[in-house]
Amino acid sequence: MVKAAVMKEPMSEVVVEEFPYPEMEDGSVTLRTIYSEVCGTDVHLMNGRLAGVPYPIIPGHINVGTIEKIKGTVRDIDNRPFQTGELVTFFDVHETCNKCWYCLVAKATTRCPYRKVYGITYSVSDGLCGGWSEVIYLKPGVKIVPLGDELNPEEFIGGGCGIVTAFHAVELSGIKLGDTVVIQGTGPVGLSAVTWARIAGAQKVIALGTPKLRLDMALNMGADEVVDIQSLNSEERIERVKELTSGRGADVTVECSGNPQAVSEGMRMTRDSGSYLIVGQYTNAGDIEINPHLDINKKHLTIRGCWGFDFSHIYKAIQMLKRFRGEFPWHKFISKIYTLNETNAALKAVENLEVIKAVVRPN
Amino acid sequence: MVKAAVMKEPMSEVVVEEFPYPEMEDGSVTLRTIYSEVCGTDVHLMNGRLAGVPYPIIPGHINVGTIEKIKGTVRDIDNRPFQTGELVTFFDVHETCNKCWYCLVAKATTRCPYRKVYGITYSVSDGLCGGWSEVIYLKPGVKIVPLGDELNPEEFIGGGCGIVTAFHAVELSGIKLGDTVVIQGTGPVGLSAVTWARIAGAQKVIALGTPKLRLDMALNMGADEVVDIQSLNSEERIERVKELTSGRGADVTVECSGNPQAVSEGMRMTRDSGSYLIVGQYTNAGDIEINPHLDINKKHLTIRGCWGFDFSHIYKAIQMLKRFRGEFPWHKFISKIYTLNETNAALKAVENLEVIKAVVRPN
Amino acid sequence: MVKAAVMKEPMSEVVVEEFPYPEMEDGSVTLRTIYSEVCGTDVHLMNGRLAGVPYPIIPGHINVGTIEKIKGTVRDIDNRPFQTGELVTFFDVHETCNKCWYCLVAKATTRCPYRKVYGITYSVSDGLCGGWSEVIYLKPGVKIVPLGDELNPEEFIGGGCGIVTAFHAVELSGIKLGDTVVIQGTGPVGLSAVTWARIAGAQKVIALGTPKLRLDMALNMGADEVVDIQSLNSEERIERVKELTSGRGADVTVECSGNPQAVSEGMRMTRDSGSYLIVGQYTNAGDIEINPHLDINKKHLTIRGCWGFDFSHIYKAIQMLKRFRGEFPWHKFISKIYTLNETNAALKAVENLEVIKAVVRPN
Amino acid sequence: MVKAAVMKEPMSEVVVEEFPYPEMEDGSVTLRTIYSEVCGTDVHLMNGRLAGVPYPIIPGHINVGTIEKIKGTVRDIDNRPFQTGELVTFFDVHETCNKCWYCLVAKATTRCPYRKVYGITYSVSDGLCGGWSEVIYLKPGVKIVPLGDELNPEEFIGGGCGIVTAFHAVELSGIKLGDTVVIQGTGPVGLSAVTWARIAGAQKVIALGTPKLRLDMALNMGADEVVDIQSLNSEERIERVKELTSGRGADVTVECSGNPQAVSEGMRMTRDSGSYLIVGQYTNAGDIEINPHLDINKKHLTIRGCWGFDFSHIYKAIQMLKRFRGEFPWHKFISKIYTLNETNAALKAVENLEVIKAVVRPN
Repeated sequence: MVKAAVMKEPMSEVVVEEFPYPEMEDGSVTLRTIYSEVCGTDVHLMNGRLAGVPYPIIPGHINVGTIEKIKGTVRDIDNRPFQTGELVTFFDVHETCNKCWYCLVAKATTRCPYRKVYGITYSVSDGLCGGWSEVIYLKPGVKIVPLGDELNPEEFIGGGCGIVTAFHAVELSGIKLGDTVVIQGTGPVGLSAVTWARIAGAQKVIALGTPKLRLDMALNMGADEVVDIQSLNSEERIERVKELTSGRGADVTVECSGNPQAVSEGMRMTRDSGSYLIVGQYTNAGDIEINPHLDINKKHLTIRGCWGFDFSHIYKAIQMLKRFRGEFPWHKFISKIYTLNETNAALKAVENLEVIKAVVRPN
Repeated sequence: MVKAAVMKEPMSEVVVEEFPYPEMEDGSVTLRTIYSEVCGTDVHLMNGRLAGVPYPIIPGHINVGTIEKIKGTVRDIDNRPFQTGELVTFFDVHETCNKCWYCLVAKATTRCPYRKVYGITYSVSDGLCGGWSEVIYLKPGVKIVPLGDELNPEEFIGGGCGIVTAFHAVELSGIKLGDTVVIQGTGPVGLSAVTWARIAGAQKVIALGTPKLRLDMALNMGADEVVDIQSLNSEERIERVKELTSGRGADVTVECSGNPQAVSEGMRMTRDSGSYLIVGQYTNAGDIEINPHLDINKKHLTIRGCWGFDFSHIYKAIQMLKRFRGEFPWHKFISKIYTLNETNAALKAVENLEVIKAVVRPN
Repeated sequence: MVKAAVMKEPMSEVVVEEFPYPEMEDGSVTLRTIYSEVCGTDVHLMNGRLAGVPYPIIPGHINVGTIEKIKGTVRDIDNRPFQTGELVTFFDVHETCNKCWYCLVAKATTRCPYRKVYGITYSVSDGLCGGWSEVIYLKPGVKIVPLGDELNPEEFIGGGCGIVTAFHAVELSGIKLGDTVVIQGTGPVGLSAVTWARIAGAQKVIALGTPKLRLDMALNMGADEVVDIQSLNSEERIERVKELTSGRGADVTVECSGNPQAVSEGMRMTRDSGSYLIVGQYTNAGDIEINPHLDINKKHLTIRGCWGFDFSHIYKAIQMLKRFRGEFPWHKFISKIYTLNETNAALKAVENLEVIKAVVRPN
Repeated sequence: MVKAAVMKEPMSEVVVEEFPYPEMEDGSVTLRTIYSEVCGTDVHLMNGRLAGVPYPIIPGHINVGTIEKIKGTVRDIDNRPFQTGELVTFFDVHETCNKCWYCLVAKATTRCPYRKVYGITYSVSDGLCGGWSEVIYLKPGVKIVPLGDELNPEEFIGGGCGIVTAFHAVELSGIKLGDTVVIQGTGPVGLSAVTWARIAGAQKVIALGTPKLRLDMALNMGADEVVDIQSLNSEERIERVKELTSGRGADVTVECSGNPQAVSEGMRMTRDSGSYLIVGQYTNAGDIEINPHLDINKKHLTIRGCWGFDFSHIYKAIQMLKRFRGEFPWHKFISKIYTLNETNAALKAVENLEVIKAVVRPN
């Protein structure tokens, strides 16, 4: 039997239940979970803020573990067969169809209507398809990425979901060699965006967030300057960014805050003819006011929304984690490790920003 | 002596005054004006809605005329010397500095803080630097474009300012072969955008505007479908666009309406992972509400503001007017021709949308 | 029983053989062939110039027909179920894996090593997987595109393989509104490139090719100027292009000739800082000499190779054929129609450039 | 009087001559030279391999010095007036016209036919317009860049011309976060390209060059792997790169070698659908053979030539040198410092690859 934490419906306590070990289809794999992330998304799931979730579910979309069983032959992207015992993670998005207009014509696979996500859009009835479980069932075709000896479980799960989300965001933001960059937000996505912007060749990275704990971490992750959003009001924050950017604003701003008000502020922190990338507005937290003349048209501003990530992002992010291991302390994002029985406390801690990153260790 | 129409201050009548013939600096040219445009911008100037205008001014920023005098040798972009008597227009923007950070580092010359615009930011004391005048003084370095025998004055001034503004907008919008395109607005910019989108390889061009006169013109200018914004409310217009685009919305939407509310509507008319270009918000007409989660982030939308145009746009637009002369009736945009003494009536007609394009014939 | 033309091995006569009607897998479709193309590639197949071809094969990779049988439900890109009797074509490339590094990380699906092509890389033992056959077997997952009432069989097969290849090439070439464009070659790919460049907003399209029959067709397909390559030597051709482009060379040149020597010539026909797209070098016809200093580095030239096409290209090309039906006479590319028994003659005619396009009508 | 080293004609000894102190025009500046570079280009000048050079000239196009005199007010890009005594460099390219088709329509300013270059295309009769001189005359409009306290003379001149050339090359090469990158050549341009590629977010940087001294420097400048081109033949080098890149070749290759044969080799070291940037072919060193089918078309390769640099590149490169001061030892490129009387020896040392970088200290 396998123990897993189940979210039965929004606003109810997560409970641990027992399930039979997965019956394996050909091409499937089971993972003995080492860590599963507790993400801001899991708080949204608990609060019922995501549409179309097939409760009851086993949360946990970013995970690391060792391969326990393989049915048939399963290969990595370079065509090498996986072995039992390997340390791996997997791409939580599955069933991107490669048949629909969004997949094949628009080539916007993160907008494929058929995609499924482990820990979010799979129900308990679909199997052990979430990471808050001793064992995870990887259906045939789920894309598995080896961590090898080059990355330990903490280094990967520390960055977790945020590191990949931020990778996509920074790639799409168009940061170029020598740009000044503002990152709005110092949660796991924002902190990771700080590092990717630094690695991508920014001349200066300015992080806006709070509290001090996270701002200190931003400095460790490559920020040149930090601004505590508690200490300045919106106008003052915009002024501060301009002071740090020769009076012009950032070449590129990346929004990772989750606060809708950050969006209008971020436009105004960006220089004329600059670029603004919005990745933090993962749920609907309300409308905002903008001035299309001043904020967009006269500014000659480019704004990009960034949704989800695809396999290339998780693959490249892991390659880069391996390369920059040791230079940036992603593993220090982990503030606390919880057992399967403590996931309700973990959710609270994430909701209250008491931790940078909470992780579950089911075994 | 030279007669010119002078806008002394906002909200006052335009009056005709007499000025001495320009004293010419080396490298300067005088133009005998054939037509000068009455643009929506001129209505904004009359209403005092643009900042930093050095009233009194001679309006008229897009003009066509014949070269009357040349002091020294003045050459076109291909290094050919101009002759008196040639039919030409000129780029109204002058003194883009080629020295500042925006010109040289950002390469965003339309955001150069030193640029001056004929008919808008030159005062009467700077000389005959506006088109509502029998003669226009082209300072040394003003960029003159020959129309030759390939374009008559009506064909150029019909398109006028809108044709060049729309050229930049469509170029920047990233329309690709086979895209479905929505154009919001059927004024001179919108109608021109319809044509450029058609010429740029759109699979379907849908124009939204009013009244019927302009929608009929949109069909002449290359629209495949038109939607009268008076006949449907915002939700219905979005629905209509989706019906015309396999349920998804346009690949690219270009806002040319001047109405801030069009901006949120336009985002919702554009498909997921599509592109939205905002060029119509030339003055500050107020704030709007948007939902950053639904309208930008989850939509994976790209939004671009587009400000002004540079020499490449007027040069290429004229090359293309010459090439597509006869295929699209730009000259029919001219609804009425006014004398120098009738410019107040012309401004009223433009303000009341009684005309597509009003032009002044000073001589 | 079904009759099909079989190419048993390179350099041997194609012979007609009989095969049993396909046994259908779930999700498969049979097509009653109306037309199949005889492409330059088929001549290469006959001459044994492509590596890895599993002879014996049934040639014919671009085809049009009516759906005869459907096993289960098969849907189009918009999720609509196909009906028997519908007029359709299909994407000849199949089994692009969506699992390998090229598919998922590089997003260069035309370089997927697992892709298979109807009429080229399927053997007779794989089934009726080529178009020179009364019936074609569309394996589960083959992407079918409806032609509907908006396109008749001749309009599609006239353009054929070339129209889609050229669509990809012109899309990738980066032609922008107002560009001057040179197309090298006036075979089916070159003639199609002429039209796509015209539709994509070129200011001037110059086609270089031979003989007069094809140059006349180029003018019908949207060329502004044609140059007979027989009448001028290489230096003179370069000079002629410069004369037609203000002395500078083309903004964008698209090579569709198949002749390796065209490549160095094409670089020199393109202006400094322009773009050169190479799509015509489908087989290895030998090395050429270039001067990397003069032809690339000092020229600040961009050169792109273009291989194959993906589903988006065939889908969009067909949408555009429907839109521009009547404006460009693609169906006139068909010089002669051959029966299944006459394919050897068809191959000869294509090899000797006696036809623009030869097609096979198997039924 | 001012002493300067004069190259009277190709293949003759450089001699030191005396000139009167410059008479200053309004807006001009004189610089007391600290260092002037001896670049590979100076060897080409000595050997008469550049066309259109107006001998006699004072060589030295990249220079650092202190401002000695200012006539009138001269400002930096941020509009701050310069003071005497400031440590500065300047952009050697002057008189880019901002009027011609290449400047204004193509926006390819490095192809402007009117641009002049200090130390290369100014004759002695134009004034002290080269850096191998105690004093350099900066004509009105020459763009001066302050080094401030953030960069000492050695740190700037160490990188010198190569650092800016390589900045442009890497920017244009399109290196993205996580790419594997090959740099061909370990001269000053190649070594700088190694660093910019590293800073721009490469996952792995592989440098090919020789001798060991330079390969060791490449490792200091950020290379992950080096390959000594003397120890392997061309086929073996291609194999070695593939071994280091999962068998595929580099995502992006940047040619900085000056050897024409490197171009075909570089294409073959780059993965299918990758990018190849050519910046090292500054002079005409002969033709090469390529196979357009295998090397470009089937490979779906993008190739870009990169000519010169513009103000944005020198400005940003200096911003980045300031930011990454201390992390990369550009100043160690300086192998030897020569007096004005020793420039012939310096040229020999550069020609014989005895030094990484030779610099002249005129005062």
